[in-house]
Amino acid sequence: MSAAEPWVQDGNAALLTDFYQLTMLQAYWRERMEEEAVFSLFARRLPATRNYLLACGLEDVLRYLEALRFDDEALEYLSTFEQFSADFLAWLAAFRFTGHVHAVPEGTPVFANEPILEVMAPIPQAQLVETFVMNQVHLQTVLASKATRVVEAARGRAVVDFGLRRMHGTDAGMKAARAFHVAGVAATSNVLAGRVYGLHVTGTMAHSYVQAHDEEMDAFRAFARLYPDTTLLVDTYDTLEAVRKIVRLALEMGDAFRVRAIRLDSGDLAELAFGARRILDGAGLQGVEIFASGGLDEHAVDRVVRTGAPITGFGVGTGMGVSADAPSFDVAYKLTSYAGRGRLKLSPGKPILPGRKQVFRMEENGQAVGDVIARAEEDLPGRPLLAPVMMSGERLPAGRADLDQARARAREEIERLPARVRALEPADPPYPIELSAALESYTREMTDVAMKETP
Amino acid sequence: MSAAEPWVQDGNAALLTDFYQLTMLQAYWRERMEEEAVFSLFARRLPATRNYLLACGLEDVLRYLEALRFDDEALEYLSTFEQFSADFLAWLAAFRFTGHVHAVPEGTPVFANEPILEVMAPIPQAQLVETFVMNQVHLQTVLASKATRVVEAARGRAVVDFGLRRMHGTDAGMKAARAFHVAGVAATSNVLAGRVYGLHVTGTMAHSYVQAHDEEMDAFRAFARLYPDTTLLVDTYDTLEAVRKIVRLALEMGDAFRVRAIRLDSGDLAELAFGARRILDGAGLQGVEIFASGGLDEHAVDRVVRTGAPITGFGVGTGMGVSADAPSFDVAYKLTSYAGRGRLKLSPGKPILPGRKQVFRMEENGQAVGDVIARAEEDLPGRPLLAPVMMSGERLPAGRADLDQARARAREEIERLPARVRALEPADPPYPIELSAALESYTREMTDVAMKETP
Repeated sequence: MSAAEPWVQDGNAALLTDFYQLTMLQAYWRERMEEEAVFSLFARRLPATRNYLLACGLEDVLRYLEALRFDDEALEYLSTFEQFSADFLAWLAAFRFTGHVHAVPEGTPVFANEPILEVMAPIPQAQLVETFVMNQVHLQTVLASKATRVVEAARGRAVVDFGLRRMHGTDAGMKAARAFHVAGVAATSNVLAGRVYGLHVTGTMAHSYVQAHDEEMDAFRAFARLYPDTTLLVDTYDTLEAVRKIVRLALEMGDAFRVRAIRLDSGDLAELAFGARRILDGAGLQGVEIFASGGLDEHAVDRVVRTGAPITGFGVGTGMGVSADAPSFDVAYKLTSYAGRGRLKLSPGKPILPGRKQVFRMEENGQAVGDVIARAEEDLPGRPLLAPVMMSGERLPAGRADLDQARARAREEIERLPARVRALEPADPPYPIELSAALESYTREMTDVAMKETP
Repeated sequence: MSAAEPWVQDGNAALLTDFYQLTMLQAYWRERMEEEAVFSLFARRLPATRNYLLACGLEDVLRYLEALRFDDEALEYLSTFEQFSADFLAWLAAFRFTGHVHAVPEGTPVFANEPILEVMAPIPQAQLVETFVMNQVHLQTVLASKATRVVEAARGRAVVDFGLRRMHGTDAGMKAARAFHVAGVAATSNVLAGRVYGLHVTGTMAHSYVQAHDEEMDAFRAFARLYPDTTLLVDTYDTLEAVRKIVRLALEMGDAFRVRAIRLDSGDLAELAFGARRILDGAGLQGVEIFASGGLDEHAVDRVVRTGAPITGFGVGTGMGVSADAPSFDVAYKLTSYAGRGRLKLSPGKPILPGRKQVFRMEENGQAVGDVIARAEEDLPGRPLLAPVMMSGERLPAGRADLDQARARAREEIERLPARVRALEPADPPYPIELSAALESYTREMTDVAMKETP
C-alpha cells in the first residue's frame, strides 16, 4: 500500500484504532494482565427521535475479529513511536483474537442499556478491538434505525436508497446499502453495493441527461428506446408539460412504449402526482407509475402518503443517508467484568451495568410488552435476545450472517413492537425496560466496591 | 475480492456510483453524444449553522479520476444486467478520464453557489464521475467546515480528534483526520490516519484500564512508569480525589515523574479544571497540564474557554466527527454547459448558474469583503479562486496536494475573513456574494432558452 492509499483493507484494519488502545495493550502485556474481560456494547440512551434502534453491523465485526493481524507494514509504522518496545512489537506480530462474542442478531430492535454485543476475551484483546467494533455497529445501527422509519412511513410503497453521493465516504455508502436492506429498503442506486451484497440495484435518469439534449422530448425518446421499462425524470423544465410529452411519446412509440414510471424530484410532490396521474390516466397510461424523490425523509414521506397521492415508490437520499436528525447515538463499549469480578465506574451520567448480561423480551399475544435486562446466567420469562456468535475466535453458525434472514427478522421483530414504538412520534409511554432483581442487586454490590475507591 | 469484501479499492471504485450514471453513460455512447460538458460542484446553500464552508477533498477526487478503470470483475458484474450490451462493455474496458478540472485549493473558504470544482470533459466522462466526486468533496468539506469552528472556539488551545469510534465508517474516519488537519486540528487518535497522512497521533488512557486495576493508583503508577510523559484519566471514580492520587504518585516517583497532563472526561469541566489546577499547583506540579474531553463541540469548547478554565487542550469526538448539527450540506454537481452552450434547469428552488465560472474574492486591508461569481473568461478585480488542477486527465502541479500547505492556506484564508463570518453565531449580515453583470446577463439569456421548453 502506498502512503497515499486511502482505502482500508484487512491488512491494515488493525491500525484503524485509537492510539491509546495500543499503549494500553502494551501496558496490559507488560503488567501480565491477561485475565478474561467482558466488554459490553450498548446505547446509553436513544436519540430523542428514535423509539428503538435496529441492531446492525455484527457481520463486519466478526469478519474483523477473524482477520485481525498486525502485518509487517503496521509493525514498521508502530516501531516509529518511542512508546513501543521491540519485544512488544514481536508479540504483536503473533496477535490474534481468540475470544468469544455474544450478540443480538442483526435486525433486532434494541433499547437503551441493552447489550448489542458482548466481547469476552483476555483484556488486551477485548480492549484493542473497541474502536473498530464501535465504529461499525454504530454506523450500521444508526442507518438501519433511520431507514426503518422511512420504510414505516412509506406503508408498503417501495423505498429506494439514493444517498451515496452525500453519505460520509465510501465505507458509509457501502454499509448504508447493507443496513438499509436489513431495514426493509427495496433497492439501492449503489452499483458496488449491489455487487458486494447481492442487492437489487436500480436507477432512473438525471437532469443533466435531459439538459444535454436540445429538446426534452429527445432525451425521453432516446432513453425509452434504449431502456424500454425505464423511469423518466419529468421536472427539469415544467413537470406536467413533460408528462404530456410522455403521452405523446406513447402515441409515437405504440406497442414499443413500455415506460415503467415517471419521477418527480421537486415542487409539491403530492399535487404534481395527482396532476400527472390525471394526465396519464386520461391517455390510457394507467400502467405508468409515479415515483417521487427530492429531499425526502420519513416525515416528508409520511405527509405525502397521507394525502393519498398516487405515488408507488420513493427515492430517499441524504436525509436517510446521513441520518440527518440523529447522525450518531451515544454508543458505549464498556468494561463490565475483569478477572471474574463485575466492574463499573462512577463518572456522572455514564452508569455501567456490571457483568455479563442477557435481555429477555416479554411478549403477549405476539406483541412485545417490555424487556428485562438480567444477569447472563438468569433464566427468566420471555425470549432471550443475546446468543453466542463466536467462540475462541471462530464464528459459530449463528454468526454467519444471511442478509435476507436479517431483513426477514427485522420485519418480523418490528411487527411485534407496539404501534406507538413503531410510530414516527416519540412513544408515550416509552417501551418498558426493567432490570432484573439479581442485576439490580449485583449493580448495588459492585457500586459499593467502586465507592471504596473514593474518599 | 471475495463477495464479502467490504473495502473499496481503486479496482472497484468505478462501480461505486449510482446505477443511472451507467445507463446514462451507455445512452450518451449510443447517441454519440460526446461533446464537452461542464459540470460544476457547489453548495446550493449553507447550513444554518455555517457562515462558510472550508473546501476539502480535492486530492481524493483527482486520485480517483487518474485511476478510474472498469476491471474485469466490474465488467463481469455489469454484464449480469440486461441493460448493458456487449459492445458497450467492451468500450467501457478502455474507458479513461481524459478531461480537465478547475478547482479552488483545499483549505479555501467558499460560500453558496461558488464552484468548488468544475469538470470539463466529454459528457460521458463528466457525468459518470458525479457520484464519487460529490461523495468525497461533500464528506471532507462537511468535516473541515465543522472542525474549523471547534478550532476557532479553542482560541489557540490544541484540539485533538477523538472521533473515529462514532464516525460513519472507515473511510469517514480516515478522511476526517485528513480534513481536520487541514482545518487546524492538532492531532488525531486514529493510528492508520497517522500513517497514511503523516499526521501527529496521540492518545491518553481509557476508563476500562483504570477499572481493570483493583486500585486506581495502580493504574496511574503502571501507566506513568511505562509512558513517562503520558496523560492520566482522572474521572473514573472521583475526579479531584484522583488528582490527589497523582500528587502522591509524584512524591512517590520523584524525578521519574514526568506526567504531562490529566484528562477530565465528565462533570463540569471548567469547575473541575479550576479545582484540579489548585491541587496540582499546591503540590508544585505546575507543569502538569489539564486536558478535557467528553461530548464536546464548538459551543461547549467556547463556554469552557470563556470561563478562563486552565485547560490547555480539548479531545473532541462525535460532535465534530459526524458534524452533528450539519452532517450534510446541499451540494450539487450540475451540468452548466454542453457543446458550447450554457445549460440550466427550471426545477423550483434549484437554480443553476450556466457556463464555466470564476470566483473573485475582494479584499481590503487584508480582509475579505465580498466575492463576485463571474463567467470564467472575465477578468475582474479581486483574487481568482479557481485554478486548473488537471488537464487531459493528468494532474498539474497545482493538483498535487500538500496537506500541510492546505492547512497553512486554510489558516491564512480564515484569518482574512471578517470576524462575524469566523464567529460561531450566524453572520449578520452574511458574507456578500454577487454575480457579475456578465454572468447575470448570460443566466437570463440561458433561462430564456430553457423556457422555450415550457409551453
